[in-house]
Amino acid sequence: MAGKWFHDAVSRDLVQSHRVKTVLYSGRSKFQSVDIIETPGLGRCLVLDGKIQSSEKDEFIYHEALVHPVMVSHPEPKTVFIAGGGEGATLREVLRHRTVARAVMVDIDDEVVALSREWLPSWHQGAFEDKRAEVLHQDARKYLADGKERFDVLIFDLPDPVEEGPACLLYTQEFYRLAKERLNPGGLLVVQSGPASWLDFRVFVAINKTLATVFPLLCPYHVFVPSFGTAWGFTIASSHIDPAFLSARDVEERLEARVGEGLRYYDGFTHEGLFLLPKHLRSRLAQGKRVITDEKPLVAVASKDPLASWPMGKPSGR
Amino acid sequence: MAGKWFHDAVSRDLVQSHRVKTVLYSGRSKFQSVDIIETPGLGRCLVLDGKIQSSEKDEFIYHEALVHPVMVSHPEPKTVFIAGGGEGATLREVLRHRTVARAVMVDIDDEVVALSREWLPSWHQGAFEDKRAEVLHQDARKYLADGKERFDVLIFDLPDPVEEGPACLLYTQEFYRLAKERLNPGGLLVVQSGPASWLDFRVFVAINKTLATVFPLLCPYHVFVPSFGTAWGFTIASSHIDPAFLSARDVEERLEARVGEGLRYYDGFTHEGLFLLPKHLRSRLAQGKRVITDEKPLVAVASKDPLASWPMGKPSGR
Amino acid sequence: MAGKWFHDAVSRDLVQSHRVKTVLYSGRSKFQSVDIIETPGLGRCLVLDGKIQSSEKDEFIYHEALVHPVMVSHPEPKTVFIAGGGEGATLREVLRHRTVARAVMVDIDDEVVALSREWLPSWHQGAFEDKRAEVLHQDARKYLADGKERFDVLIFDLPDPVEEGPACLLYTQEFYRLAKERLNPGGLLVVQSGPASWLDFRVFVAINKTLATVFPLLCPYHVFVPSFGTAWGFTIASSHIDPAFLSARDVEERLEARVGEGLRYYDGFTHEGLFLLPKHLRSRLAQGKRVITDEKPLVAVASKDPLASWPMGKPSGR
Amino acid sequence: MAGKWFHDAVSRDLVQSHRVKTVLYSGRSKFQSVDIIETPGLGRCLVLDGKIQSSEKDEFIYHEALVHPVMVSHPEPKTVFIAGGGEGATLREVLRHRTVARAVMVDIDDEVVALSREWLPSWHQGAFEDKRAEVLHQDARKYLADGKERFDVLIFDLPDPVEEGPACLLYTQEFYRLAKERLNPGGLLVVQSGPASWLDFRVFVAINKTLATVFPLLCPYHVFVPSFGTAWGFTIASSHIDPAFLSARDVEERLEARVGEGLRYYDGFTHEGLFLLPKHLRSRLAQGKRVITDEKPLVAVASKDPLASWPMGKPSGR
Repeated sequence: MAGKWFHDAVSRDLVQSHRVKTVLYSGRSKFQSVDIIETPGLGRCLVLDGKIQSSEKDEFIYHEALVHPVMVSHPEPKTVFIAGGGEGATLREVLRHRTVARAVMVDIDDEVVALSREWLPSWHQGAFEDKRAEVLHQDARKYLADGKERFDVLIFDLPDPVEEGPACLLYTQEFYRLAKERLNPGGLLVVQSGPASWLDFRVFVAINKTLATVFPLLCPYHVFVPSFGTAWGFTIASSHIDPAFLSARDVEERLEARVGEGLRYYDGFTHEGLFLLPKHLRSRLAQGKRVITDEKPLVAVASKDPLASWPMGKPSGR
Repeated sequence: MAGKWFHDAVSRDLVQSHRVKTVLYSGRSKFQSVDIIETPGLGRCLVLDGKIQSSEKDEFIYHEALVHPVMVSHPEPKTVFIAGGGEGATLREVLRHRTVARAVMVDIDDEVVALSREWLPSWHQGAFEDKRAEVLHQDARKYLADGKERFDVLIFDLPDPVEEGPACLLYTQEFYRLAKERLNPGGLLVVQSGPASWLDFRVFVAINKTLATVFPLLCPYHVFVPSFGTAWGFTIASSHIDPAFLSARDVEERLEARVGEGLRYYDGFTHEGLFLLPKHLRSRLAQGKRVITDEKPLVAVASKDPLASWPMGKPSGR
Repeated sequence: MAGKWFHDAVSRDLVQSHRVKTVLYSGRSKFQSVDIIETPGLGRCLVLDGKIQSSEKDEFIYHEALVHPVMVSHPEPKTVFIAGGGEGATLREVLRHRTVARAVMVDIDDEVVALSREWLPSWHQGAFEDKRAEVLHQDARKYLADGKERFDVLIFDLPDPVEEGPACLLYTQEFYRLAKERLNPGGLLVVQSGPASWLDFRVFVAINKTLATVFPLLCPYHVFVPSFGTAWGFTIASSHIDPAFLSARDVEERLEARVGEGLRYYDGFTHEGLFLLPKHLRSRLAQGKRVITDEKPLVAVASKDPLASWPMGKPSGR
Repeated sequence: MAGKWFHDAVSRDLVQSHRVKTVLYSGRSKFQSVDIIETPGLGRCLVLDGKIQSSEKDEFIYHEALVHPVMVSHPEPKTVFIAGGGEGATLREVLRHRTVARAVMVDIDDEVVALSREWLPSWHQGAFEDKRAEVLHQDARKYLADGKERFDVLIFDLPDPVEEGPACLLYTQEFYRLAKERLNPGGLLVVQSGPASWLDFRVFVAINKTLATVFPLLCPYHVFVPSFGTAWGFTIASSHIDPAFLSARDVEERLEARVGEGLRYYDGFTHEGLFLLPKHLRSRLAQGKRVITDEKPLVAVASKDPLASWPMGKPSGR
C-alpha cells in the first residue's frame, strides 16, 4: 500500500482504497471539494466531497443504467430535464435518443461542469455542444419552481444530500411533488437513489418511500457499479407506465428505432432482469417508513471527512 | 483508520478494509492460513489465505444464491454432493430441502471445519449433526474419482485456486468431466465461479468457458455480496435442464412443497432476475477463450500476501 | 498492506501502521482498552487505548532510558516509588540496582498488570516476585496523599492523560507538589513526558513548564524509540542534583558498583549525550507557558479513536 | 483515513502514512519517480522513488545536521563539494559559511533540481543564484574521477542506493577512496548514512564499516527527523580531525565568526550531544562486517513499490 492512495470511507467500519497515479486537479468549488484523480485500476475519476462520482472505466454502467430504462419506457421522449449530471455523461446518453428534441441540464456547480469539460472528455464526448442541449448553472429546484415548462422525462442525477451541500433539498417529498407537476402527461422520472446493499440500504429505502407518497407507480432497481464497490439503486416513478412490463424484445425494438448501436451495458435482457430485486431488498423496501421532507431532510453523509471532527488537542502519545 | 483493521487486497490497485473488533482465532491449517475475526460492520468473518470467505451478516446471500437455484431447478434432488463448504452453511441450505435423503460434504481441511463448528455456530446451525449428512475430510477430486456413487446435485463451494492451495485442481476441464460422470441422469452442477465484475471477470469467464466444453447447458448468474465488495459469479451446468425456464411461480411452488419458510435472499422473483445478466458481462462471457486444464490450471491469486515478495533486503530510507 | 494491521493515529495527519501477526488479547479493563498483539517487526506489543505502550523488541530502550539516568544520579537509591509501569519492566530495571531495598509500584489497573504477567514475561522477568517489590492496585495520587512514606526516587511511568482516563490528574502541578513532599532529602523524580518531536512537543513542553514551577532543577532529555516512531521525552526533577554533571566515567563506576552487566541501551557515554538537546527543542522548552493544574488538566489524546465521532447517519454514497 | 494519503512503506511490516492536501507534481525524471505533495502536517514534501526526501516543516533539522558539524569542524572551509542535494537546501546551508569561496554541487538529476527551483523555494532560498555556487548535472563519481580539483569539505547528500538508481555506486569503498583523493590535506567528508534505528541499522552500519576501511577517523551521529519517522544517521570521516573534540564553546565561537544568526537546529550544545550515541547503536557499529564495494554494492531499497512484484494474474477472490 505504499505510494499515493485515495481512501473512500464507505462507512466508519469499511474503507475502500484506490491506488492513485496522480492527482490532476484538487480544489474546492463554491459548493463542494473537487478532485480529479488518475488511477491504474479505474482510469480517471471524479471525486466530489471525498466520494468517487464516476470512473472512466465503468461510468458507462452507471450512466446507461440511469438513463436508458426510463427513456426506453417512455413511448416517445422528446423533452428531457436533467438535474445534476455535471460530468456530461448523463446528457450524452440522453442525446443518443433520436426522439429527443430538447434536453435541459441544470447543475448548480458551474466549476464542476467546467472541470469536466476540461478533464473528462470521454464522459461528455461533446454533448455540451449538441444543439439540442441547454446547460444552466442554477438551483434545479428553483428552476423547476419558477418555470412553467413540462418535460417527458426527468432525470435526477444528484450528489448525496450532504449537510449544507448543494443537493440537500432535492430529495424531499416537496421537491418530488414539484417534479410531478413539471411532467407531461405520461411522463416519467428517474432518480439515482443511493447504495442498494444489505449493509447500507437506508437512503435507498427512504427515497423510495418518499417517492411512493407522490407517485402511484414505482420501479426500483439496482446495479453493481465496480468503482463504487457496491450495488447502486435507481428508481423510476410515474403515474401509469410500468417499465417492468416491457419485454426484452420491446426494448430491443425501441433501441433499434431510437438509439442504434453503441450501448455497452444496457439491452433487452438487461432491462428484463433489472426490476427483479432479490427478496431481502424487496422486503426492506416494503418496510420503509421514513418520508423525507423539507423540514426533515435526509443527510446521508454528515461528514465529508471521517477525521474532520478530530479534537483540536494534538494527541501525544503513549 | 486508527486501531485494528483487516485489509483485503482485491487487486494491487484496490484494497477493501474492514475494522476489526477482535481476532478470535489466527493460525495455519495444513492447507491455508485461517483467521476468524469479529468486525463491527459484518459481524464474525471467516478469512482463508487473507480473503473473507463469508460474514455473519450477509453469508445468507452467498449461500442461498449458491444452493437454491440449482436445487429448485432439479425435479426432485435426493442426493447431493458438496465439495468444500467448510463453514457448514452450504450444507445447512441443502438440508432445508426435504427431498434430500443424503448429503455428502467433502472438505479437505478438517481444521477449518473444526474451527467453524466451534466459532461459526450461526453458519452451520447444527447441520453437521443432521443424520442425512456425511462429512469427510479428504481430497474432493480423489473422492469422486475413487467412488462410484452418483448424485442428483453437485455443489462446488471451493476457495480460490491459489497456487499450491487445496483447490488448485478443482477448477479444471478434467475435474468437470469427472464431475459429469458422477451426476445421475438429469443431474445438475453448480460452481461458485469467482468475481463477476467489469473490473475483474477473468476467473468467471474462464470457469464458464471450461464448463462449456463439458456441459451442453450453462446458466451463469451473479449476485452482489456486500462483504466481498463485488458481484459474485455462479454457474449452473447440466445436460438438459435450463433453470432460466422456471417461472417465479414454479419456483414458489417448489419452495413451498420442499423447503417452507425461512429463506431471506431467494424466492421466485429473485430466481427470475438471476439469469438476466447485463450486456457487458454477457459479451465478456461470449468472448472467453481460456480453457482451464490440469496442465494449465488457473491460478487466481498467486500471492496470499501482496507484500510477500518484498525483497529480503530491508529498505532503508531516503 | 493486505492482511491484519494495527494503525496508530499519531495525529489526524499522520498514521503509523504495524502489520499484525495475531491479536493475543483484546478487551477493556475498568480503565482503558487493552490489546496485546504480535507483530513481525516489533514482536509482542502492549496497546492501551489504541497506542503502543511498549514492544518486545525495543522496550529496553524506553525502560532503561526512564530508569537508569535518575537512579544513577542518586548517590544511593534505597527506596523507589513507581506510578504506573504495569508491564513490570520499569520495576525490573529498578531492581537491577543492588542499592534498592524497597520498591513500591502502584498501578491502578490490576487487569493490565495481570495480563502483563501472563502475556509479557520478557518484560517483567519475574520482577513481580522479587521480595523487595510491593505491587499495589490503587490510585497513585491517593496513595501518595494518604501515606507518609518518603522515597529516594520517584518514577512516573504513566499512560497519556486521556480524558477521563486513569492518568488525567497525574500530570498536574498539584500532583508534582505532593510528589515533592514524598521525596527524601536529595531525592529525585523522573517523568515520562511525552513525544519530544518538532512536530509534536506540546505535551513535553507543558510537563516541563509545570515541573519547573515546583522543582528548582530540571533535566529534560529525549530518546528515539523506534516502535513509537518518534523521539520520546523524559524529565528528571530534583532540588539540587543535576544529572548532567555526572561524567561518563562517574556513570560507569556507579553502574559497575550497583548494577553490573546486562544493560543494552544505557552506559556512561549514553548518559553524557542525553541531556544535550538540540537547539530547536531547547528553544521550545524555554518558551513554554502552559502550567498544568487540577483545574485545567492536560488532555493529550482527547479521542481514543479518530473515527469515534463519525456521525451516526450512515454515509451513503455518490 | 478517508481522502488522499501518501503511504511510505518504511519496511514490509511498518507503513507511515501522511495525509495529502494535494499533489503539486507527479512524474518521472530520467532517473527516478518524483512527487511534490502538500500535506497538512509537514507542509510541502519532495518524494523520490516513493520516499519522502525532505519536508518544508523539518528540512532544517536534516540539512543543518548534515552540513554544520562537518563545516564547523574544519578550521577554515573554503571549497566545498556537494554530491546530490537537489533541493538546494544543502547548498543553502553551506553558503551560510562566509569562509566558503566556492561550492560545487553535482546532482545528476537536472529535472529534480529544476522542479525544486520551481516548487521548493523555501529550500534553496536563492542558493542556486549565489555567485560562489556552481551547479552541474552529471554523475558525481565521474566528476570526481575526471577532475583534479581538491576540496576542503565533501558532502554526500545522496538518495538511497536503489537498484539501478542514480546513487548505486556512490556508497562503495572505491568511491570513498576516490573521494579521499579529492580532499585537501586536513579535509573532511560527511555522508548521510541511512536510518539509525534499532529496527533498521543495516545501511548505517555498512556505510560506517566501509568508510572505516578508507578513513582513519570516523564520527557517526544520529538525529531524529520527524518526517522520516526515524532517527537518521550521518558520518563524518577524515584523516585526523575529530569533530567530537570541539567543545560547545568552540562551536559557538566558530559559528559566530563564520555564520552568524539564523540556525535553528544546530549550536554548540547540539554539537556536543551529537557524537554520544547510545550503547546499543555503538555496539552494532562495532560489530559491522559488511564492506560495500563496486562489485557488491548495497541495494537498500530493492523495490520502489512494495506491490510492484505483485503477480500479473489478477487476484480474484474468495
